[in-house]
Amino acid sequence: MPLITLLTDFGLHDHFVGVMKGVIAGIAPKTQVIDISHEVEPYHIGQARFLLSQSWPFFPKRTVHVCIVDPGVGTARRPILVEVDGHRFVGPDNGLFSDLVVREGAKVRHITSTKLFLNNISQTFHGRDVFSPVAAHLTAGVTPSKTGPLISDALRQTTSEPVRIGRRFWQGEIVHIDRFGNLITNLPASEFKEMRPKGMALKVGLRLLTTLVESYASAPDDEPFLIEGSSGNLEAAVNQGSAAKVLGVGLGAPVELELW
Amino acid sequence: MPLITLLTDFGLHDHFVGVMKGVIAGIAPKTQVIDISHEVEPYHIGQARFLLSQSWPFFPKRTVHVCIVDPGVGTARRPILVEVDGHRFVGPDNGLFSDLVVREGAKVRHITSTKLFLNNISQTFHGRDVFSPVAAHLTAGVTPSKTGPLISDALRQTTSEPVRIGRRFWQGEIVHIDRFGNLITNLPASEFKEMRPKGMALKVGLRLLTTLVESYASAPDDEPFLIEGSSGNLEAAVNQGSAAKVLGVGLGAPVELELW
Amino acid sequence: MPLITLLTDFGLHDHFVGVMKGVIAGIAPKTQVIDISHEVEPYHIGQARFLLSQSWPFFPKRTVHVCIVDPGVGTARRPILVEVDGHRFVGPDNGLFSDLVVREGAKVRHITSTKLFLNNISQTFHGRDVFSPVAAHLTAGVTPSKTGPLISDALRQTTSEPVRIGRRFWQGEIVHIDRFGNLITNLPASEFKEMRPKGMALKVGLRLLTTLVESYASAPDDEPFLIEGSSGNLEAAVNQGSAAKVLGVGLGAPVELELW
Repeated sequence: MPLITLLTDFGLHDHFVGVMKGVIAGIAPKTQVIDISHEVEPYHIGQARFLLSQSWPFFPKRTVHVCIVDPGVGTARRPILVEVDGHRFVGPDNGLFSDLVVREGAKVRHITSTKLFLNNISQTFHGRDVFSPVAAHLTAGVTPSKTGPLISDALRQTTSEPVRIGRRFWQGEIVHIDRFGNLITNLPASEFKEMRPKGMALKVGLRLLTTLVESYASAPDDEPFLIEGSSGNLEAAVNQGSAAKVLGVGLGAPVELELW
Repeated sequence: MPLITLLTDFGLHDHFVGVMKGVIAGIAPKTQVIDISHEVEPYHIGQARFLLSQSWPFFPKRTVHVCIVDPGVGTARRPILVEVDGHRFVGPDNGLFSDLVVREGAKVRHITSTKLFLNNISQTFHGRDVFSPVAAHLTAGVTPSKTGPLISDALRQTTSEPVRIGRRFWQGEIVHIDRFGNLITNLPASEFKEMRPKGMALKVGLRLLTTLVESYASAPDDEPFLIEGSSGNLEAAVNQGSAAKVLGVGLGAPVELELW
Repeated sequence: MPLITLLTDFGLHDHFVGVMKGVIAGIAPKTQVIDISHEVEPYHIGQARFLLSQSWPFFPKRTVHVCIVDPGVGTARRPILVEVDGHRFVGPDNGLFSDLVVREGAKVRHITSTKLFLNNISQTFHGRDVFSPVAAHLTAGVTPSKTGPLISDALRQTTSEPVRIGRRFWQGEIVHIDRFGNLITNLPASEFKEMRPKGMALKVGLRLLTTLVESYASAPDDEPFLIEGSSGNLEAAVNQGSAAKVLGVGLGAPVELELW
């Protein structure tokens, strides 16, 4: 069964997501639609990139991933289609896909074929009028080359990338806060685990965290600690509590990691 | 694949929506169920009507739309089936469908065929016991005439309709506040755009808004403005901010529009 | 069409639920996945048990119910499969299924067949790495006996059970607060309705409620009252208002019922 995933900042309060699914069902009735999240912080492209990076590798090849966080809706920013590693990604060219367009073998197209859109294009809801119908046509069999020409200048901005200073020091940031209040950094644990450090300290907010544990349950009560999360990134967490509240930091907060 | 949509004030916190889908899956296993929203303000029939009006035209014909905002559950208010324009609507006769029952060719039935219900009917959860099984039977092939007799006295209340006073003045209200804090009025932009006015002013809360823009991104920062939303209605918005917060108004707040 | 239900405390804010559905779609593309709720209070096993008890009987036999509220993820607590009454349940052995494992004919297995898991098992997200793939393999045709050996020592803890004292007095608790603020007790109305009492009083918070009504709409305005909810349990409610707010009590609050 063909698959479309949806990742947006539209929320579930409104009719937006349901209407997108209606448009898809009209064009591609056999396609299954799976929500990744619609609770991206409004306009927060970096958070959407993180959630997308955590999701798409767990889907079958040929899935079409629709990703819409689009402060520029109605302006000249381009709708694009990215093909990489057998997956297809549809959304605005505003940095959402900058991790993907730089990958080897990635093909990027400017979606210009207006006959794949709904007949009336609003200035404010391209999720309904442009991205959903294009994604549906793709799962219904339209080939990517029919969506528009290849381009080579898609946005490759690289904010939210960690910076390594010397061998043992990194600067990063909090790229996501999950439902449990865990603070997820952009620091991949694999990078420093192979160094087999004797100790480490993560500075987050006003605190220095030095305890790295294997599982949430093996952590001390009430004390914030470090863990390699399911993302593979370093997280600050509190056992059965919210690290975000205990440490008083929010999305985008800077962190510093030192090993010894 | 047959389609059912769900629009309720049940929220996603509880088991209510999941259970409705279980009932549907048991009766009509091939039917796909799409959520429009379950976050209608509890008991707010006017908001549900707005969300329904924005959604159903984007679905394929033959879709069954289940709409439940039902402060009178367990009392004598009737369950009804409305057929209009190839679509079918199921829910309580309490004004939710009053925009639809007045349309040309609309057929309305009082759903009386209890053999289409679950065996035990609770006093409090007709979404599970009445509306979901009826909708499922419809997508599984039961013809509308088997649900009950045609009626002609379904509720046609017309609150939330804008009032036009003279040629250039309208009184309306905020019928929905979306996830981004945009304030959506019940004033259709088409009605006054064809008058090609030189200027306009919308009074909302204590403010008079006079700037009409084409897209959110082309608006001034931090200043509330007017835009024709994806609903086709006039909206008050703030670029990357919440008009509801900036203007301090809520659902149902009155607005006044003047053109010149 | 094979069915999987999901009941977790993961929320819809993150990518967790979407990723689980991606894993399922990769293994069992024809399986339909239905969300019961992902808004269980984090780590609140008792609430999840209530929601599960309210949901699964409304699904077709052979449905696989995945239930994950898992404060012990990454520790030695066992993943289990419970078969009862033609339904299958998958989740951690931490009391979530204690109502089910004691039922006549229930079979419980320790899920040990790691080839049914994803290749890399994280310490923190067994919903993705263990429970979703096992559930998907079950709907794709793997027989329960292939998941692991039968066990007889699954957790049977019975907190949240009401206590009857004499003929006319019960002690219980609030096991769920629904979206409307209704307070749902663990006292089954059937048990005392057959006694045909002349009157009753439920002590909840600082109030004594003595009015039992048939439907929400037939209740007095603004006054809290008692009703047999759709769960079959006694609920404290306020007509078009929140009993939780009016009575000032939360999840787990004790209640006392007296009949006369």
